[in-house]
Amino acid sequence: MSLSGGFKELRPAYGFDEVAIAPGSVTVNPELTDVHFSIGQFTFDFPVLAAALDASVNPLVAREMGKRGGLAVMNLEGLQCRHDDAEAAIQEVAAASDEESAAVIQKLTALPIQEELIGRRVREIKESGAICAVSCTPANTKKLAPIAVDAGCDIFVVQSTVTTARHLSRSVRGLIFQELVANVQVPVVVGNTVGFDATRELIECGIAGVLVGVGPGAICTSREVLGIGVPQITATIECSAARDDYYRETGRYVPIITDGGMHNGGDVCKALVAGADAVMLGTAFARAEEAPANGYAWGMSTGHAALPRGVRIQPGTDTTLDRLLFGPTSRTDGSENLVGAIHTCMGMVGAQNISELHDAELIVAPSIKTEGKIYQQAQ
Amino acid sequence: MSLSGGFKELRPAYGFDEVAIAPGSVTVNPELTDVHFSIGQFTFDFPVLAAALDASVNPLVAREMGKRGGLAVMNLEGLQCRHDDAEAAIQEVAAASDEESAAVIQKLTALPIQEELIGRRVREIKESGAICAVSCTPANTKKLAPIAVDAGCDIFVVQSTVTTARHLSRSVRGLIFQELVANVQVPVVVGNTVGFDATRELIECGIAGVLVGVGPGAICTSREVLGIGVPQITATIECSAARDDYYRETGRYVPIITDGGMHNGGDVCKALVAGADAVMLGTAFARAEEAPANGYAWGMSTGHAALPRGVRIQPGTDTTLDRLLFGPTSRTDGSENLVGAIHTCMGMVGAQNISELHDAELIVAPSIKTEGKIYQQAQ
Amino acid sequence: MSLSGGFKELRPAYGFDEVAIAPGSVTVNPELTDVHFSIGQFTFDFPVLAAALDASVNPLVAREMGKRGGLAVMNLEGLQCRHDDAEAAIQEVAAASDEESAAVIQKLTALPIQEELIGRRVREIKESGAICAVSCTPANTKKLAPIAVDAGCDIFVVQSTVTTARHLSRSVRGLIFQELVANVQVPVVVGNTVGFDATRELIECGIAGVLVGVGPGAICTSREVLGIGVPQITATIECSAARDDYYRETGRYVPIITDGGMHNGGDVCKALVAGADAVMLGTAFARAEEAPANGYAWGMSTGHAALPRGVRIQPGTDTTLDRLLFGPTSRTDGSENLVGAIHTCMGMVGAQNISELHDAELIVAPSIKTEGKIYQQAQ
Amino acid sequence: MSLSGGFKELRPAYGFDEVAIAPGSVTVNPELTDVHFSIGQFTFDFPVLAAALDASVNPLVAREMGKRGGLAVMNLEGLQCRHDDAEAAIQEVAAASDEESAAVIQKLTALPIQEELIGRRVREIKESGAICAVSCTPANTKKLAPIAVDAGCDIFVVQSTVTTARHLSRSVRGLIFQELVANVQVPVVVGNTVGFDATRELIECGIAGVLVGVGPGAICTSREVLGIGVPQITATIECSAARDDYYRETGRYVPIITDGGMHNGGDVCKALVAGADAVMLGTAFARAEEAPANGYAWGMSTGHAALPRGVRIQPGTDTTLDRLLFGPTSRTDGSENLVGAIHTCMGMVGAQNISELHDAELIVAPSIKTEGKIYQQAQ
Repeated sequence: MSLSGGFKELRPAYGFDEVAIAPGSVTVNPELTDVHFSIGQFTFDFPVLAAALDASVNPLVAREMGKRGGLAVMNLEGLQCRHDDAEAAIQEVAAASDEESAAVIQKLTALPIQEELIGRRVREIKESGAICAVSCTPANTKKLAPIAVDAGCDIFVVQSTVTTARHLSRSVRGLIFQELVANVQVPVVVGNTVGFDATRELIECGIAGVLVGVGPGAICTSREVLGIGVPQITATIECSAARDDYYRETGRYVPIITDGGMHNGGDVCKALVAGADAVMLGTAFARAEEAPANGYAWGMSTGHAALPRGVRIQPGTDTTLDRLLFGPTSRTDGSENLVGAIHTCMGMVGAQNISELHDAELIVAPSIKTEGKIYQQAQ
Repeated sequence: MSLSGGFKELRPAYGFDEVAIAPGSVTVNPELTDVHFSIGQFTFDFPVLAAALDASVNPLVAREMGKRGGLAVMNLEGLQCRHDDAEAAIQEVAAASDEESAAVIQKLTALPIQEELIGRRVREIKESGAICAVSCTPANTKKLAPIAVDAGCDIFVVQSTVTTARHLSRSVRGLIFQELVANVQVPVVVGNTVGFDATRELIECGIAGVLVGVGPGAICTSREVLGIGVPQITATIECSAARDDYYRETGRYVPIITDGGMHNGGDVCKALVAGADAVMLGTAFARAEEAPANGYAWGMSTGHAALPRGVRIQPGTDTTLDRLLFGPTSRTDGSENLVGAIHTCMGMVGAQNISELHDAELIVAPSIKTEGKIYQQAQ
Repeated sequence: MSLSGGFKELRPAYGFDEVAIAPGSVTVNPELTDVHFSIGQFTFDFPVLAAALDASVNPLVAREMGKRGGLAVMNLEGLQCRHDDAEAAIQEVAAASDEESAAVIQKLTALPIQEELIGRRVREIKESGAICAVSCTPANTKKLAPIAVDAGCDIFVVQSTVTTARHLSRSVRGLIFQELVANVQVPVVVGNTVGFDATRELIECGIAGVLVGVGPGAICTSREVLGIGVPQITATIECSAARDDYYRETGRYVPIITDGGMHNGGDVCKALVAGADAVMLGTAFARAEEAPANGYAWGMSTGHAALPRGVRIQPGTDTTLDRLLFGPTSRTDGSENLVGAIHTCMGMVGAQNISELHDAELIVAPSIKTEGKIYQQAQ
Repeated sequence: MSLSGGFKELRPAYGFDEVAIAPGSVTVNPELTDVHFSIGQFTFDFPVLAAALDASVNPLVAREMGKRGGLAVMNLEGLQCRHDDAEAAIQEVAAASDEESAAVIQKLTALPIQEELIGRRVREIKESGAICAVSCTPANTKKLAPIAVDAGCDIFVVQSTVTTARHLSRSVRGLIFQELVANVQVPVVVGNTVGFDATRELIECGIAGVLVGVGPGAICTSREVLGIGVPQITATIECSAARDDYYRETGRYVPIITDGGMHNGGDVCKALVAGADAVMLGTAFARAEEAPANGYAWGMSTGHAALPRGVRIQPGTDTTLDRLLFGPTSRTDGSENLVGAIHTCMGMVGAQNISELHDAELIVAPSIKTEGKIYQQAQ
């Protein structure tokens, strides 16, 4: 008896721990390597962004990132724009017990978003001259984007677990990215996505950047609750291919930002070699002394009433923005000096800029985590 | 020296933890998604069935599932139809020590099945208007099926570890599914099976549903005792292909029900994307307050005298039928609101019904369990 | 720059825990299944042999195996033929501390093999009518085989870590298997081997059976000391292919015996489906009350003076020969009733004899060990 | 929508624990096997080198290795040539707490390299007649190599994490290996590298040996800090292919030395079968009583000020140079008698010299670590 249709086929997909970067035939002095990164008209000194978690980015962190030539994204739907004293609300979450934390987050997130606070937070970020980026979900974008842009925000981020250019809903007319891009007049970054076709369709809407990653975040449980997700290396490879494909056809370059799942310099470098133009980290920034949540972190969907898909975690406070990004460090686990690691890695694979870094080789090598390391594992 | 015959070839097969669902290019509002499921003339409001374990389904649970628009299957060969006071027998198992539990189950299962009790249990289920499904093994089907159908059961399930349309035995004439289907006049669901050919042959007998899964159950040890089993994702893909193949040829659609091995919403969604029309869970229902065994569960073959292939486990009582199926929940591990998870997953892959959900992509991605999760694992 | 020679290629190889047996489209009543097994003119009632470890096989165990229609192999180079009171020597090993055990084994193995004891042990086995099998390494075969055969041994086993038909040494004339077979006049079984070509060459020497397995044994550390080994499923598939190839050409059938690495019924069934005609277990028999070493086991090379490749382990005494082989059992982990497991497995894959069992399907399915088993793992 | 460019492809790469050596059809008596190894005009009695770690090689160890017919490499940039009393400096590192160790190493490494000490250390090694090998990084090679060679060193090693024949830097003229080879008049060994092309280019510069390995060392964390590395089996296969390719074209044979990640005889044998002519171990030699650091070990980059990529570990002192290399041993884990293991392995695969050992088969077999070993793992 033969099968006429063929079986459903399953492609393999890889995550950070399963791959490694292979050196090539040329090396370059790290001093010669260039790690600049651009979104629309804005250029940043390094390709490591802070993600829109309440525990990672408040106006202070956004200003500090700006001073260093970087970019932090603030969440318009978190506690910052619901609470006049957002810092107190964040402290309340941090002070809750493990059992109560989800309920506390849920309670504090139940308050309405205040338009006045959006303006105030944007101005707090801009007062230092930093480039201001804010984010919200597709459902609130039509309403909140004009307010934020009017208040002076420079980059608008539309972000949900999975965002596509085609969304079916009962409402007469949902969010159309082409219209949003035409209306807001600032670069629009959209995410998250993980596939070639979906990324290509989003890019064709005229957006200025793509966030890649479904479920990898340290605070996210989408993968067990819904079964949905694509490991970040494969997701980045596919989304980057869409960027390159579109660039070859149109000459417009839309950066790919790998978002979530990285916790050391090795992970960051692997994302860039996979094709990312930049990376976005949440929990790593929550570990900085400048972060507002005393070493805790939680996800954007932790407060969902019926089906939460995020937990509060406690990575602790063990670094500063400067040490995290630029070192120097005495740590040997790659958890500090992320930008230094990028420069050093580029040197070893002979890449003088991020675009050349995309040409380095990745291998599938799960043993990279353990080979020869029995004594380290025993310590 | 060359090999004329070629070596035995081994195909790869995948389980829940090794795969993930990849989002596509369209999303849909979860409110628009339809999760109805049918067996023969009966349609159910959601595709999550309760399996025929004594610890999961008694007449009360079957009635409660019916009230919610769902289906529970009661085992005719367990304690319900051997003991007048079945609840007391179940409590005796629950109260036994770990060492004695197998012997207690064996002792209580040694009593004969009473025809009178079959009728009584069926009537207890039907009194609330629920659709009544009962199960027994092939060896007892010829005798018990007419009794159950006469008493009013609506769906008859024939279930053993491995059931095929062709069975060789010393008896002059064994169970012939074509005859059973012709005789009982109610939909016949048969399992378990895991392969394309075996499923196709069963479907051709005129049965109304197929149970998929050999050995995945939380209480089953067939895989270590006998070495037999196929991980559920591959098993579901193959059996679903047989359904589709037969449907293309004949126009008759026979639903595939993935049975066992799922413990959170992610697993359930993966089974449906792999091709299942519904899923059947045992241990998850044993966790409900409505379940009869105080948070214990055990398998149908735990009481086998010579070669038992099941253990008693203690998942505990930590949910209710409502929270398990529909939420709301504050849990972030996917162990409650299974139907809500299906709706949300369908939204993220752009599927408006289960048939469209079959078209979503599955990837092989073992790292999905660990990528970025060091802090969660440490908690 | 291109590579003219190509890279060294690495084939994948699989072990017991990575594969599973897939049921087919036919089932058969276990009562109809036949598990007989033959070596030369001798036929045994079941295909599970006891291996030539001092801790597993003494004359008593060999007699008891014979009474049940089975076969045990006694080691001529262990303690039985070096010590008049071998049981006392075995007890001395069992009584040693973990630190001293290797030195004690080394000391007790340093005594010479006594020809008189070979005769005595063979006669002790034969006195009950059991078929007597004894083993030694290639280096001692020319000297010891005639003595054992003269004393009445029925089957002679030549066994070392790796044995081939072509061995290069400084001695003028080493062991030639064709000559051995011609001289001893009893069936000669040779091992161990793991590859197609090496097995085919051994079979062509006229031997009566092949032992398959390099390094899988519970007491063996060859794989870490030397890096040498092939997991048993792949080894069995290859060696069985050599048997089939030779049989097609010559009509002579030489049984393949998978030796080592199995600890439950599932492992045994997988070896048989991979192509083995029988299996040989060491540590499992050391667990029987009839075994001489009080629940300890150690390997043939544990006493090597310069580079030992075996350890003493303590599986404990937790079964009897009858329960181990035939049950009944209340254990659910497959560690007892191995022959019953073979019959049940054959029923589920529709095999009426071992030859048909070779046609069952094996799949690569590492998740078979964990799928759905979180509660079992927690216990 | 189709992809014009194709996705980035990822080759698989394997490490020691994932592969095994498959025996062949011929065996040979270990006494007949030859393990000699040559670099340029120098021939050594065994192919196991001691690596240039301060904790593994001081002048004493180099002399002792020479007496046994072997080779140890001394690091010119470690503590030996910065401290008059180097042994005291090494003791200071060993005596530091875990928290302080990196800072202590950093402080002690901050002292300048003294040219006078280079001469003194070389003479200390040469006084016993040993062949003297010393190493430094590419940046210091032009300056230090002439000093060392003038003092009498026989082999010069240029070593960094990744070294290539083409290095881009701001300096007008960096290290050109062709010039170095022409100038120093002693064999130049270069590393580390892991790929075919890079190795081929280095060999074409006229060097006398290649060190293979990026990140496998027990004290190295490059793989987590930078994401860079290739598991050693694949790296060795590729680099050896470059050696063979070049040899076929030119008739000049440049040995490949696998450096790092091996901790037992099995690992060493696997590296040789993968194509290595010799192996270089660091931590294993730090375990010898003759080693200077009391059972501690640390890496060459542990003291890096801004981005250290090595840790101090404590393997302990549990062997001697003689037992480590030649046994006899009562250990069964392969951690002693490495040269004996090579001879025994060669016997089992029928290789009479290292070149024939390259022809043995490697298989991908991760289960080799666990198959049948539940009792060993429980001990």
